[in-house]
Amino acid sequence: MASKTNPRNYFEDFRIGQEIRHATPRTITTGDVALYTGLYGSRFAVQSSDEFARRIGFDGAPVDDLLAFHMVFGKTVPDVSLNAVANLGYAGGVFGTPVYSGDTVSTVSTVIGLKENSNGKTGVVYVNSVGRNQRGEMVLDYNRWVMVRKRDESASTPETVLPELPGVVAPEALQIPKSLDLSAYDFELAGSPHRWDDYAIGEKIDHIDGMTIEEAEHQIATRLYQNTAKVHFDQVAAGAGRFGKRLIYGGHIISLARALSFNGLGNGFRIAAINAGAHANPAFAGDTVFAWSEVLDKFEIPGRRDIGALRLRLVAVRDCQATDFPLRDAEGKYDSGVLLDFDYTVLIPR
Amino acid sequence: MASKTNPRNYFEDFRIGQEIRHATPRTITTGDVALYTGLYGSRFAVQSSDEFARRIGFDGAPVDDLLAFHMVFGKTVPDVSLNAVANLGYAGGVFGTPVYSGDTVSTVSTVIGLKENSNGKTGVVYVNSVGRNQRGEMVLDYNRWVMVRKRDESASTPETVLPELPGVVAPEALQIPKSLDLSAYDFELAGSPHRWDDYAIGEKIDHIDGMTIEEAEHQIATRLYQNTAKVHFDQVAAGAGRFGKRLIYGGHIISLARALSFNGLGNGFRIAAINAGAHANPAFAGDTVFAWSEVLDKFEIPGRRDIGALRLRLVAVRDCQATDFPLRDAEGKYDSGVLLDFDYTVLIPR
Amino acid sequence: MASKTNPRNYFEDFRIGQEIRHATPRTITTGDVALYTGLYGSRFAVQSSDEFARRIGFDGAPVDDLLAFHMVFGKTVPDVSLNAVANLGYAGGVFGTPVYSGDTVSTVSTVIGLKENSNGKTGVVYVNSVGRNQRGEMVLDYNRWVMVRKRDESASTPETVLPELPGVVAPEALQIPKSLDLSAYDFELAGSPHRWDDYAIGEKIDHIDGMTIEEAEHQIATRLYQNTAKVHFDQVAAGAGRFGKRLIYGGHIISLARALSFNGLGNGFRIAAINAGAHANPAFAGDTVFAWSEVLDKFEIPGRRDIGALRLRLVAVRDCQATDFPLRDAEGKYDSGVLLDFDYTVLIPR
Repeated sequence: MASKTNPRNYFEDFRIGQEIRHATPRTITTGDVALYTGLYGSRFAVQSSDEFARRIGFDGAPVDDLLAFHMVFGKTVPDVSLNAVANLGYAGGVFGTPVYSGDTVSTVSTVIGLKENSNGKTGVVYVNSVGRNQRGEMVLDYNRWVMVRKRDESASTPETVLPELPGVVAPEALQIPKSLDLSAYDFELAGSPHRWDDYAIGEKIDHIDGMTIEEAEHQIATRLYQNTAKVHFDQVAAGAGRFGKRLIYGGHIISLARALSFNGLGNGFRIAAINAGAHANPAFAGDTVFAWSEVLDKFEIPGRRDIGALRLRLVAVRDCQATDFPLRDAEGKYDSGVLLDFDYTVLIPR
Repeated sequence: MASKTNPRNYFEDFRIGQEIRHATPRTITTGDVALYTGLYGSRFAVQSSDEFARRIGFDGAPVDDLLAFHMVFGKTVPDVSLNAVANLGYAGGVFGTPVYSGDTVSTVSTVIGLKENSNGKTGVVYVNSVGRNQRGEMVLDYNRWVMVRKRDESASTPETVLPELPGVVAPEALQIPKSLDLSAYDFELAGSPHRWDDYAIGEKIDHIDGMTIEEAEHQIATRLYQNTAKVHFDQVAAGAGRFGKRLIYGGHIISLARALSFNGLGNGFRIAAINAGAHANPAFAGDTVFAWSEVLDKFEIPGRRDIGALRLRLVAVRDCQATDFPLRDAEGKYDSGVLLDFDYTVLIPR
Repeated sequence: MASKTNPRNYFEDFRIGQEIRHATPRTITTGDVALYTGLYGSRFAVQSSDEFARRIGFDGAPVDDLLAFHMVFGKTVPDVSLNAVANLGYAGGVFGTPVYSGDTVSTVSTVIGLKENSNGKTGVVYVNSVGRNQRGEMVLDYNRWVMVRKRDESASTPETVLPELPGVVAPEALQIPKSLDLSAYDFELAGSPHRWDDYAIGEKIDHIDGMTIEEAEHQIATRLYQNTAKVHFDQVAAGAGRFGKRLIYGGHIISLARALSFNGLGNGFRIAAINAGAHANPAFAGDTVFAWSEVLDKFEIPGRRDIGALRLRLVAVRDCQATDFPLRDAEGKYDSGVLLDFDYTVLIPR
């Protein structure tokens, strides 16, 4: 009798062009939103207040863009990264239709790249994943690549295919909800007076505040996203592993850092794109996360005078203030205290 | 002046036929559902997606059957088991009308059995508890028995009454929502290809994954259910007690094991009955829970070709993989690592 | 380029009459309510059941009055108390229109008092804060005073202004929702038979049960309220500070004690006023909280025969049963185990 449990995919199970309809569509609710707020303490007015959001043309408070990201991402884990050694990178992530409480999101992925590593034990799998709501509208379209184990080291090596991925999502590819009209945006209620025009390329911002992570918090978050990777939950396996402790889902750090970034980027009311991202070092319960940002670029949005975009680097660091903007050492390696180097684009009123 | 606090019931306070209308009716919301997902990481598509659930005839995503169970159960604690020494067993549990977010559930219990123990200090109380929604429809009808302390050891011994309880809920007693039509059930979105016909009596399934429990998690869960038993919350009392630590509500382990069982039983979309259950050993924060299942029986459902039922044993174990299906030792005693031996019936598409 | 982060207010930044429109309006949802229940385990029937609440004239289950308090309070933190040394007191707090899930609350504060301390390093700031719903209706109007650092010790001393604050909110100032009619109040479902008439001035009630607090719990709560005070979250800073550990938001203790007070005050279905309050000692994760109450006064409500008010002292203590009603030592100082001395007024059926 065939085993009933998820056989998981190993490197040799992936084929270029393979399409995976991931399991467990997910209705996102105000319950998820509340838990998200409780876990990260985000304070962006658009996501906190139906009234504020409606005044600028949303149908109500959209759910946090990263909550949508985690939900879309979480579905891919059982099929793509259950045997992953590492989550290597992101590229070309575009947010589409905003997600509202009550929407049901599901994800389909396509294998767009494969490259076996020279050690013959692992390989890199590139997937494009598209999350859609119940009307089939794209809510998030992004690429990621992960290092996956081979089941059988003697399995034949597939032809190497490396996808062409953009280094940054171009301004004209950003999707701005058509209904938005920022003329009624209330900067005082938003908590920050700073507009697109006030930020300069190269400017760095220390977000000052720190948050210590507890095991219960990252576990609750990761289960909420129905991300099943066992490294986050199983202390028996983790205790016998390389670090001796449970690893925190990288997305948890992204959300923490984004929430901290409110203090300095309070009007960055919507994430429009994820350009790139690296989880520079693993994070564990007990770590205190601080964050800083750098303005990498500024984009005008074609046809809009009320909204601009900032391309930002968001860096999360562990156990020390980000006053000195730590990132890499003299040899170009990430400092051991750096957890995240995330390159994304936000919309902000002009 | 009479004491204002809950006097609690001791063994000699219960009378055969006594009916207890439990306090605190509870409106169950999408908030409870989100928290339930965050606490256990359940991935059954029917409970996760309004769209998926509607396609097969539900009014929307019903709340997890065990969330309904915990809510109905929680109400009984202040009246039935606040002085309980042990929760001894369950029998004849039948799930009725599915519970949806927005429904308000309340519970009424009837004392159906009493038996004083020979030590004269405790006795066993059997109650039948019925949870109903705001329209008076039965959502859960089950029996449990608990060992309760006597207030006064010299109190007279009541006549022993032992209720007749079924060893298993018969297939014809299972309540299948009439609106269900499984023809549109999407096995790919559900995450598992296995139907009723694919399971064999005697088949055992190792659910593979493990979850480590944190104090904050089980406390939040147990409070969510408004279960007030102090052994779960009060470290001062627990520290002076037999184990030196807070005990985890047994239902928390049932929910964790059920969530883990998705990996192998992903199409068991609805719990129809609880036949029996034993909390074999107490569980504590820091325990890592693994689970395995055994197919005890297979039932056809009278009048339905699209749905069958599986009677399952669900075993939760602590701190080791369930690869060898641990249960009892040579003398028939539960292994010290076994936390739960739960006998229930699920509906599954044919 | 101006710093983009919140400059915070120091003592010399406040001016009498200054009005602060706080950031981040907040739509309160059933998700917040579920998390609140999971964090405190409150069991008041009115807040738990839409059905119960409607029977006595609410539009549905109102959110817990203290959840509304925390939401209104949380908004004030970035502007008022980010540099606070201590939260000194509350007075004249009146609850207005009940808050329901879906309502959006925002807060405006006015500086009503200033007094520099003789050390020249700090001063006391008195603010009146008013929370309103999306229709502009007052939901909570209260005063608090905090000790705030000076940025510059040589800054000039403002004229001392001490506001006149009531020692207790008078019965005729209590706002009773006009729609309420307690004739259908179900004491059995509420879980307690005790009415207004059953309580005597001077009566003390030990609420018996204890709850141990975990770091994850108070952090999730405090973030849910979008209260950003770093002392609650940042172990790096806390580890270098006076206590060596993270401080628990005082409001978390109020909510825990109020939830515990259900056992003895189960029909105190609505908080009508906050008369005074002192956080007698700081609380930390690991503390087990017990509570007791004293009936300070009894008020008839003008024009109502179905509802009375009790003025209550609610005391939270740490790590020991409240059997002996601990409060102050012989010299009038709070016992070291007392965490909270809270003076508030509840509505209760007659």
